[in-house]
Amino acid sequence: MAVGPDFRPDLHPVPCVRLAATAAGIRGGGGDRDDLAVIDLAEGSATAVVLTGNRLRAAPVLVAEEHLAAARPRLLVVNTGTANAATGGEGVEAARATCAAAAELFGVAPEEVLPFSTGVIGEPLPVEAVAGGLPACRDTLKTDAESWWRVADAIRTTDTRPKAACRRLELDGEPVTITGVAKGSGMIHPNLATMLAFIATDAPVADGALRSLLRAAADDSFNRISVDGDTSTNDALTLSATGAAPIHPVDSPTDPRFRELAGAVTEVCRDLARAIVADGEGATRLLTIRVTGAADDGEADRVAAGIARSPLVKTAAFAGDPNWGRILAAAGAALAGEVDWSGVDLHLGEVRVVRGGVADPGYTEAAGARAMAGEEVTVALELGRGPGRGWMWTCDLSYEYVTINAEYRS
Amino acid sequence: MAVGPDFRPDLHPVPCVRLAATAAGIRGGGGDRDDLAVIDLAEGSATAVVLTGNRLRAAPVLVAEEHLAAARPRLLVVNTGTANAATGGEGVEAARATCAAAAELFGVAPEEVLPFSTGVIGEPLPVEAVAGGLPACRDTLKTDAESWWRVADAIRTTDTRPKAACRRLELDGEPVTITGVAKGSGMIHPNLATMLAFIATDAPVADGALRSLLRAAADDSFNRISVDGDTSTNDALTLSATGAAPIHPVDSPTDPRFRELAGAVTEVCRDLARAIVADGEGATRLLTIRVTGAADDGEADRVAAGIARSPLVKTAAFAGDPNWGRILAAAGAALAGEVDWSGVDLHLGEVRVVRGGVADPGYTEAAGARAMAGEEVTVALELGRGPGRGWMWTCDLSYEYVTINAEYRS
Repeated sequence: MAVGPDFRPDLHPVPCVRLAATAAGIRGGGGDRDDLAVIDLAEGSATAVVLTGNRLRAAPVLVAEEHLAAARPRLLVVNTGTANAATGGEGVEAARATCAAAAELFGVAPEEVLPFSTGVIGEPLPVEAVAGGLPACRDTLKTDAESWWRVADAIRTTDTRPKAACRRLELDGEPVTITGVAKGSGMIHPNLATMLAFIATDAPVADGALRSLLRAAADDSFNRISVDGDTSTNDALTLSATGAAPIHPVDSPTDPRFRELAGAVTEVCRDLARAIVADGEGATRLLTIRVTGAADDGEADRVAAGIARSPLVKTAAFAGDPNWGRILAAAGAALAGEVDWSGVDLHLGEVRVVRGGVADPGYTEAAGARAMAGEEVTVALELGRGPGRGWMWTCDLSYEYVTINAEYRS
Repeated sequence: MAVGPDFRPDLHPVPCVRLAATAAGIRGGGGDRDDLAVIDLAEGSATAVVLTGNRLRAAPVLVAEEHLAAARPRLLVVNTGTANAATGGEGVEAARATCAAAAELFGVAPEEVLPFSTGVIGEPLPVEAVAGGLPACRDTLKTDAESWWRVADAIRTTDTRPKAACRRLELDGEPVTITGVAKGSGMIHPNLATMLAFIATDAPVADGALRSLLRAAADDSFNRISVDGDTSTNDALTLSATGAAPIHPVDSPTDPRFRELAGAVTEVCRDLARAIVADGEGATRLLTIRVTGAADDGEADRVAAGIARSPLVKTAAFAGDPNWGRILAAAGAALAGEVDWSGVDLHLGEVRVVRGGVADPGYTEAAGARAMAGEEVTVALELGRGPGRGWMWTCDLSYEYVTINAEYRS
């Protein structure tokens, strides 16, 4: 682990959610690593899904959308090894065949199965390997925390560690759990690029309310991380609500419990999103980019994203170089119209580097270098032109990123 | 030189343009490398200028704009070592002081001097060093080709080689010359990021026609190169027309000679733009991204730029990996609305890799690897949805890019 402590959060199982994973031999080069995972949702569970914004949509994304329109999901089937993307009609047939095989084995309708894939684009999905691995999954389904971790591990590609998060809260005096797993370490950018995340709660939530809740949580977590600005073909985020908790359903955003639950789901999403960016390919440093004083929140977000995406800012961060000129230049590239730089302040951590658009008279390179030295750095840019606020998480750009992406092909 | 032959084009002097460079000690660490250049334009020369689109505009850009509004330029003064950007009012004063010193020494008005700077953002401009170097420039001004090369060399920052280009043509039976120099190897992206280029011709061209001509030439050259997607604070492109050639002035875009001259100026701009991207920081491979069959030219350009900017495409190119999935995914991220991928073909060089949105049945990885093996690769994407065409030049993303940008601070 390159960034942050090797923290392994306590996970609590979610009643009525069972999980399993197995080594099905989908990944080339031997079946010693788990590459197939199944998440089984009890009947009656509601599931909300956010899918990639990339216009090249992988076959499993197309099939998942079709199935979501027809039925409530009962089974999530996830493979690594191939993204089953840019594989045309054959890819769609392979995704459908996977769902059909799972449906038969688990006793549900094919439309109640959602397929998810991650890996190389353009490689076909070996349906027989998937089908061959499904019985082992069915026979080992469990609700326990270890099964969540095993799924977190199975869905990794270039991730160096499994990612999971959990929150518990009380609603109407009853304990409620939210637990999730995620994968993703390259091609990470707003709109869920090459990221899979599966979250479940035992709170009962109506379908429409669940969708609003997930969209809001994603906007304030997964949509604020950037590793390399690329977007992908397969990304998906799901939130399932089993309703096992014995309380009255949350059926509207105006229900006061909606806000409480949404807050906790957002925290789970943020934990996962942060774990993804901290595990960004080759990352050695996590950067939080905070922009205040923008004309509006949209402008603040654009400026934060511009800084978060800048290769020059990211390579300087790798070197621990307090290169504030590159940060202001990235902001300048993201802004439009007239800009009065005399209202601009910049802090690296606690150190004020720029005041009124120029180097702070009290600033020293040594202080800047100390501010950049840690594994986590906050870059806080005040634009002085309005009430807009925004933020992004990103990581540095290292030799290792080039190594991984110049060599990764599995 | 990492990409392409170490070709040093023949340069022809431009009558009535004199140049010089000297080591003025502006760059830290000793005065052994030229860091100050002067280009002297005979009285009556017209000059068109394109300045950076970044909203953080360096002091010399602000002063150049002010001076352009007041007078026709007689003197271009260029320094490396500092960009004189994000230096507030002091930066503007330093740029003005530079112009005043040059004006006095060369016997022109301060408004007839345009300042240009390139280097670290945030470092002040040492006016005394600039002023101290100007007499040496004045005393060595020459029109010869070697002086063009010396200026090309003096304006380098991380460039590994000087960049110059030349074309000659006949207008009304008279020979006309266009010669230019440029610098830039990082922060290169459309809108002229961290790039300086100075071009001159002895053709007589009216001010308005010269501006149209330069804008058109830039749109089809410098605005089609991307090294890392970052944009800068100091970029500038100038085209001066001395009028020394004994022909009637080209005073309108409808003049048939306008088209001829514009074509030759565009070729000079393309030579310089291509030299910049081929010398991109750490570049080992030059990629031409051609997009056809887009809904319109704007869409084609967006898709070409999306591919040209993708770190995943660029790292794959560094590895010589024919990773067509990343190319299609980058295209998918740049497209909007419904996309029918069954009309999509992709060629790497002469090799058809994708046909109808999926791997061409005749395609082999070995053929793809051969297509990616050269120092120059053309990526040709046909979208099959309309008449739109566009293109970009870019380079690969190597370890060396990270090294240069993690360590560069001078």
